[in-house]
Amino acid sequence: MIPAIAPVTRPQVTAVIGATGAVGREVLKQLHERNFPVKELRALASHRSAGEMLPFGSHQVAVRELAESELAGVDVAILAADASTSKAWAPRLVAAGAFVVDNSSAFRTDPNVPLVVPEVNGHLLKSRPTLVANPNCTTILSVMAAAPLHAVFTLIRMTACSYQAVSGAGLPAMQELENQVRQWSRNEPVQASVFKRPSLFNVFPHDSALLPDGSVEEETKLIRESQRILGLPKLRVSATCARVPVRRSHAIALHLEFAKPVDVEVARQTLDRAPGVRVIDERQGSPADSLMAAEQDDVLVSRVRFDPGVPDGHGLALWVVGDQLLKGAALNAIQIAECLVS
Amino acid sequence: MIPAIAPVTRPQVTAVIGATGAVGREVLKQLHERNFPVKELRALASHRSAGEMLPFGSHQVAVRELAESELAGVDVAILAADASTSKAWAPRLVAAGAFVVDNSSAFRTDPNVPLVVPEVNGHLLKSRPTLVANPNCTTILSVMAAAPLHAVFTLIRMTACSYQAVSGAGLPAMQELENQVRQWSRNEPVQASVFKRPSLFNVFPHDSALLPDGSVEEETKLIRESQRILGLPKLRVSATCARVPVRRSHAIALHLEFAKPVDVEVARQTLDRAPGVRVIDERQGSPADSLMAAEQDDVLVSRVRFDPGVPDGHGLALWVVGDQLLKGAALNAIQIAECLVS
Repeated sequence: MIPAIAPVTRPQVTAVIGATGAVGREVLKQLHERNFPVKELRALASHRSAGEMLPFGSHQVAVRELAESELAGVDVAILAADASTSKAWAPRLVAAGAFVVDNSSAFRTDPNVPLVVPEVNGHLLKSRPTLVANPNCTTILSVMAAAPLHAVFTLIRMTACSYQAVSGAGLPAMQELENQVRQWSRNEPVQASVFKRPSLFNVFPHDSALLPDGSVEEETKLIRESQRILGLPKLRVSATCARVPVRRSHAIALHLEFAKPVDVEVARQTLDRAPGVRVIDERQGSPADSLMAAEQDDVLVSRVRFDPGVPDGHGLALWVVGDQLLKGAALNAIQIAECLVS
Repeated sequence: MIPAIAPVTRPQVTAVIGATGAVGREVLKQLHERNFPVKELRALASHRSAGEMLPFGSHQVAVRELAESELAGVDVAILAADASTSKAWAPRLVAAGAFVVDNSSAFRTDPNVPLVVPEVNGHLLKSRPTLVANPNCTTILSVMAAAPLHAVFTLIRMTACSYQAVSGAGLPAMQELENQVRQWSRNEPVQASVFKRPSLFNVFPHDSALLPDGSVEEETKLIRESQRILGLPKLRVSATCARVPVRRSHAIALHLEFAKPVDVEVARQTLDRAPGVRVIDERQGSPADSLMAAEQDDVLVSRVRFDPGVPDGHGLALWVVGDQLLKGAALNAIQIAECLVS
């Protein structure tokens, strides 16, 4: 069910769209670090960013404007732009013969486009679909922990409360938080524009669009995408998403209810064996935190414990932390690309 | 069920034990701001803090060492020290004829000592008990929101995930976070000793003692104290407690399941009418955050919404934020004292 990722061999003309953003920059970094066989790299972005230089290993690449003329010959494209850019350009890239991995929400609910976390539902990549949606960051981290446990105990209900880094709102949000730290230190007024309120010393509900049912878009993504990736369309999911003054790791408090009675030690071992997951056992030291997870590929899981609030011994609680720019975005996208081109 | 707090008339010899701590300082401030009829104020602390001057309104009071000789004539004592100090001194204060409100965990599970949030179970104060336990901060804030809804829909299950300010670990933790902000701004290494890890840019599981069942003490307090205060000893409670880099407000994501089907508008109105609770309606602006709740008496509730993860329309989700030094500690203690001496 969880496919081993085969090594990529044939060199690929690789396009990264939205290359100058927080996720785009990580995509470039990961392509290099993972030795993705890049034959030619096209770092593409909006007109505004054209000409900017971005690091790619020890080289610098010049950003070019995303245009029809850039599509010819692209083997693999990773879209790390907004949903409207993806809607416009993903079909053209597919038409030009590329495998496309889209990090936006544009195609995540499209039944014809697989929504994939390779360790969880990577079997969907075997048919080599030309367009694959990369899930929401909080969703990826949550299902990385929930899926292995589902395989053992059969998941029937999930409550997820998130502690999300500002990086989810892009580089300007990270820079704003850092600027606020500097402003506060200099006794200057703290300036806020990205979130319309300070991030420093503050926690607030997720800033995505408020929906008529009172949820925010991020929570709806977490609910629907988890159901889809886990293959449990009727899974009961409760979600609260919040922002915390953290730069790049998301944490999620998961409370899981299963059809079968749970065994904490089996759960811990199951998670520790799961690819891409690392159990940081708080009995042997400190449980995982945002700083530990930053720039790590693995999703860290701590505090695997019996949940006394769930009837009949069917509940587990866990603390999940992962780098939202890596496994929550760029790394997962590249893992998908690796599967597609191998 | 929720008693109106009658005005206090007779002047009181008032002792504050642990006066130099984060909560003790707030107790002094609140005694003054609420016009508690202080006839004589005894600001008491350990030998180490004796001689320190603390503000009380426009005056300064000298801290004296807690000693047997300070107990005579005390009408009301508010203990804001650690549990061992409370265990040693609360009985002596009671024996000396004082009404004692203890902010520590020393007596919270003692069936002979009422555990009170005046708006929720203030009827327990009618018999004028001489020793009353002030609940855990996260518990107070959670039950302030859960109790009014329980009265309407009958609570059967609660999942609480907390986003707790560093102030819960005392003044040194607040100062450490502020120092880390300054250190980071100066490109200096961030120094951490209170939590043994940085608070800045970091979120981590609550630092209270790890228990054999894998929970931390703070979670066990939240579970048991909520059951006790709500008068629901078998209430199913799931809890995850975490620290966030915030100075004084705790936030809690509450997912509540009821015996009756819920109505979101009724829930919102119920909360808005509840004493000590203020609904900040995100449909009319920004939902409540840590900074909004700081130095506010009221517990702020936002994002009152239907919880799709709960079967049969029996679930509500809410976002609760409150100043943990005020309603979470000092204010609740003084409200108890007001009831006792009125």
